[in-house]
Formats: sequence, structure tokens, C-alpha cells
Amino acid sequence: MTQRESSRPVTVGKYQLGGNTKVYIQSMTNTYTKDVEATVKQIKQLTEAGCEIVRVAVLDMVDAHALGEIKKQISIPLVADIHFDYRLALEAINQGVDKIRLNPGNIPKREHVMEVVEACKAKNIPIRIGVNSGSLPNRMAPTPENMVATAKHHVDILESMGFYDIVLSLKATDMNLMIEAYRLAAKTFPYPLHLGVTEAGTAFSGAIKSAMGIGILLAEGIGNTIRVSLTDNPILEIQAAKEILKNLGLKDKVPNLISCPTCGRIQYDMIDIAKRIEQYLLKVNKTINVAIMGCAVNGPGEATHADIGIAGGKGEAILFRRGKIIKKIKESEVYDVLVEEINNFDDSIQDHEKGA
Amino acid sequence: MTQRESSRPVTVGKYQLGGNTKVYIQSMTNTYTKDVEATVKQIKQLTEAGCEIVRVAVLDMVDAHALGEIKKQISIPLVADIHFDYRLALEAINQGVDKIRLNPGNIPKREHVMEVVEACKAKNIPIRIGVNSGSLPNRMAPTPENMVATAKHHVDILESMGFYDIVLSLKATDMNLMIEAYRLAAKTFPYPLHLGVTEAGTAFSGAIKSAMGIGILLAEGIGNTIRVSLTDNPILEIQAAKEILKNLGLKDKVPNLISCPTCGRIQYDMIDIAKRIEQYLLKVNKTINVAIMGCAVNGPGEATHADIGIAGGKGEAILFRRGKIIKKIKESEVYDVLVEEINNFDDSIQDHEKGA
Repeated sequence: MTQRESSRPVTVGKYQLGGNTKVYIQSMTNTYTKDVEATVKQIKQLTEAGCEIVRVAVLDMVDAHALGEIKKQISIPLVADIHFDYRLALEAINQGVDKIRLNPGNIPKREHVMEVVEACKAKNIPIRIGVNSGSLPNRMAPTPENMVATAKHHVDILESMGFYDIVLSLKATDMNLMIEAYRLAAKTFPYPLHLGVTEAGTAFSGAIKSAMGIGILLAEGIGNTIRVSLTDNPILEIQAAKEILKNLGLKDKVPNLISCPTCGRIQYDMIDIAKRIEQYLLKVNKTINVAIMGCAVNGPGEATHADIGIAGGKGEAILFRRGKIIKKIKESEVYDVLVEEINNFDDSIQDHEKGA
Repeated sequence: MTQRESSRPVTVGKYQLGGNTKVYIQSMTNTYTKDVEATVKQIKQLTEAGCEIVRVAVLDMVDAHALGEIKKQISIPLVADIHFDYRLALEAINQGVDKIRLNPGNIPKREHVMEVVEACKAKNIPIRIGVNSGSLPNRMAPTPENMVATAKHHVDILESMGFYDIVLSLKATDMNLMIEAYRLAAKTFPYPLHLGVTEAGTAFSGAIKSAMGIGILLAEGIGNTIRVSLTDNPILEIQAAKEILKNLGLKDKVPNLISCPTCGRIQYDMIDIAKRIEQYLLKVNKTINVAIMGCAVNGPGEATHADIGIAGGKGEAILFRRGKIIKKIKESEVYDVLVEEINNFDDSIQDHEKGA
């Protein structure tokens, strides 16, 4: 059994993290949490994009007091991110959050940790311990062993209080360090793992780094929830996360766009069409392969295996549906015809022609 | 020994593909090859971005005749992409290309394949056999076994003519199929492998799919050259390829940008600074970690481990160099100061503080 399935289940709002094959997508708001309206608005956008769990930073008591009102207005589990101050944790729990992120070893007094643990027990909410390679105690070298040892220090505190509803993350900005730390953690702890490459970078390079780090671990059966960290609009984090899970077969009802690299064979403006269709597909919840191909060499073959596809030529294109040529259409009609085909497509009907 | 190291070496212009630990980055132009000026211009841009091998589509004899002039004006190996027509292959070889991409099984007459093989032998240039899941013969189902069997059919033809300077690709648009096909090919053939996910999609989702598919294989020691296929400007393909190789430790002299996800703690416009610095770093050939951090929680820790870093606050930032705080700077100075620091940084000096 993989770490994903064998991990101890914990409850995060309406979801069970660990002990199953499901991998949840999460993100973090970049609004001021105390600005309830802006925060709720962003959480709703994230939810619509496919975010399943959302985390907010709680910097002070004003942020903490806002959590109840935020929680009331959203439909996905809410996680409070807290550093150092146990009173913020207590207030967040009081406000009804579904999980807190807190490292107990950073709270000086054991009695204060105990208060937080008792409050979590009473509300049945888990604690995520988040170890970050960049902030290990005592200037420890950032190695997988030291990261796991640091996690164990925090875990031991909670376990000594009879608390086991624990989620762990061991993020690093170095992809290889991150992979090794999670592999070691998967062997060491029975708890669900929250995967992420931290400080991954801007949207394009950060998505690549995250896809490799998170993807290699997920493919090995490690990880129960993922967060792609990008220095950009968090909506892109959700788009990246869905893409990662979809490619690994860990998420269905996500459309897949197949489009060829542009080369000297192309005779129409396919980059534009591909981008517009990609944008449209972001809001479509169907398991559907849409192919946008530039030419007659690879086009018809790939488009034939797709659920819906076009292979473009000079001023016109051929429309395919489930392996059959439907009709020729003009270049100017391509976008509208594809959108209509996508809307009409019923992904509950499986077709024997459907391949890779 | 991995497939990468044990594969039979072949010569591609100034490079040796296979039989070593090097992984070459390649791309394909999207200009009309017969438009020499536009094609050369794009190849120069690709070369400057880090492209090491470039492929051009040869659709007709006018394209083929242009190859010699293109070759004269560029500094990296040139590959001619040819389908079906052996005369285009002969002319491309005559024009001095460094490699051809051609599937011999698609050329009806054995004597014509023989002519191409003899011409390649005379010039010491290899042939890449490119199998694509979407265009297997006889409507074969797209499985790893059928893809490898199709490759073997082409390989057998060349081997029967005493030709072994072969490179293979087994691309699929389905990431899992692509991974399994290459794994099986690595066990089956002694030849260098050209990795790629075909028809991967637009820049963002295509880069994610490619990073996972190519990255998982490279991490297993499979692959000698990679091509990231994106429906966008091919420069982005190079940027993605460099990012993939860098994260796996397969390429040095590539800067690494560490920047945190934006969250409710941020008090300055770090997305803008991160994006501008990322653009600047594209042209920098140094092994350097640059950190752009938003706040005091993770910022100083991560920035400390970077070669150069800033941790921002309200209207000002702290500049770090190799683990030491250098000075406080104004927010308005951050970009210029970072650029100056990057320019002055000497990556030949290693620092014991440098970590992940």
C-alpha cells in the first residue's frame, strides 16, 4: 500500500485527508485576511477554479477575528496559517476554522501548546506541521535528515499530548531536497503529507519546478494534498495543480487540450485558437480530450484519437468527433464550432476508439 | 549504468549524443524554412536562449535547397525533419545538415532508403526515427508495446543496411503512455533517446505536462536530448527545457530564482520585481541562486541560503549576499541593486554557507 493510502486519516471540514487515493488541491490567498470582502472574493474565485482547501495567513488578532465571517461565506475548508503566537491559534479555532498550520516547537511554553491541542481535540480539527528547509532551527544544514528530524521534534510534542490528527509538510526550494525529504518522511511518519516546493518562483518556471517535484512524489504514491506555490495570481496555482493531478490520472472531469507545437508546416493562427480554447476549458468540468492541430502530418492521427478535434489547413479545418470526420469548417468558425462541440459532448459515454 | 550513459554514441555536428551524462536541449523553428532570413533569425534567438540543436521542417525541395544557406549562418547543429519523401532527405544531406529525422518504414522502396542510408554514412550523420502515438500504422492501439514494435520495424530496416547511427523518439500526448514507451525503449534498444511529450498544449499547461513526463524519465537516467513542445514561441521551449535540466542537476550555469508565493503577509509589489528579475536572469549564464522574498517569516531564512537575496518589508528591503546581511535598501532601488549584485557575482567561488 502506498503512503497515500496507508496514512492515518484526518478530517479537514468535509474532506478526509489520508487513508485513501484522493489528492486534494489547495492554495493560499494573497489578500489581507482582515479584508473579509477581498478574501472571500478570492476564495470564491479559487473555488470556482477547482481549489478544494484554502489557507489564509493570520498575522494578528484582527485577522483571527475575521475568520468566522470568512468561513460563513465560503464552501470549502478553511485553514489558518499561524506562526509563533498560540493566542491567534486559539482564536482561529474559536472562529471555526477546519485546520491550523502551526509548529508547536515554536511556541515557548508547553502549557500554551496544550491549550491549542485541547481546543483542536474539542473541535476535531487537525494541525499541520510545516517544516521549511530555509528555516530549520539552530542553523542546521538543509538536508532531508535534518528536515525530518525537525518535523519529528514537532510531532513528538503533539504525540506526547495524545494528539495524532497531524498533517506534515517538508517543503524546500531545492527540488531534489524536497523530494528526498518527503520520501524519508513517508517512511518515518504515519501521517498524511502536504506536498509543495516552496518559493518555487514565477508562474512559468515555478510551475515547472513544482510539477517535477510534486509529480515525481505523487507518481510514487506519496502525498495526500498539494499546493503549487507561485509568485503570481493564486488562480494559476490551481490550474497548475489540476494539470499535475490530471496527467497522473489522479483527477478526472478535467479537460485535456492537445495542441501541437507550431512549426513551419502551420498555415493558420493556431496559437490564438489554442489559447482561447484553453481559457474556455478552464471552466469546463468534463473528462474530454480536445485536439487543436496545425497540419496534415500529425494532425489527423492525433485528432482522431481525441474526443473532439480540428486539423487546420489553409483557411479551413477538418472537424473530428470521437474518431470520425464530421465536416470541413472555415477558419473563422473554428472557435465557435469547438465551443459548441465541447458543450454538447457527453463524457459519460465511453468510446472504444478513445485512446491516448 | 543508466540508459543515458550506456547508449551508443552518435555524432550530431559538434556534439556527441549518447554514451555520456550530457542532455542536449533542442527545439524546432516555426518559420517557413524556405524563408532563410526569418529562419536564421529565429535560430539565433533560440541559440542565445540556450538551444543546442535545432530542427527545421522540410516540406518541399525549396525548403531543402535553403538548408545550406541556413547552416552557414548558424552555430548549432541543424536537423532536417522529413516525412515520406526520400529525395528531400538526399538533398538535405547534400546541403550539409547534421542529422535527419525520417522514418524509413514510410518510404515505400527499399532502394530509396538505401540511398539515404549511404548518403548518411558518407557524411557521418545520424537518423532519428520518430514514433508518435497518434500515427501508428494500421490503426494499432496506442500502447507502449505497439510504439516500441513500430520503432523496431524502422530500426530493423536501418540495421539490415548496416546503419547504426540511430536516435529514437517515442512521443505521445498522454504523459503516462509516453513514460512507459520510453522506459520500454530504454530496455529494448541501445540507441540514444530523444524525449518529448508531443502536442503538449499551450505554454503553461504544456510546460507542466512536459516537465513531468520528461522529468520523471530524466530522473531515472533515461534520455539524451529533450524537446519541450509548446504551442507558443519556441523560446519558451528552451526556457522550460533549461528549467527541467537545472532542477535535476543536469545543467549548470543556469540561474535559479527563488521567490515566495504571494500571501497576506506581503507589503510590497514583489510579483513585479520577481518577473522583471526573472526576465533579466534569462540571459545570465551563471550558477546563482537569487531569492526574492516577501516577508520576515520565511524570507530571511531562505534568502540567507541564496547567493543573493532580498527580503522585503514596508517600503524597504534587506539585501543578503552569501548568507550575510549587506544593507537595507529602498523598495524603489531593489531591481537595480539586484541586477548590480547579479552582475558582480562570481559563481566560481563556492561558499560553505550555500545550501538548498
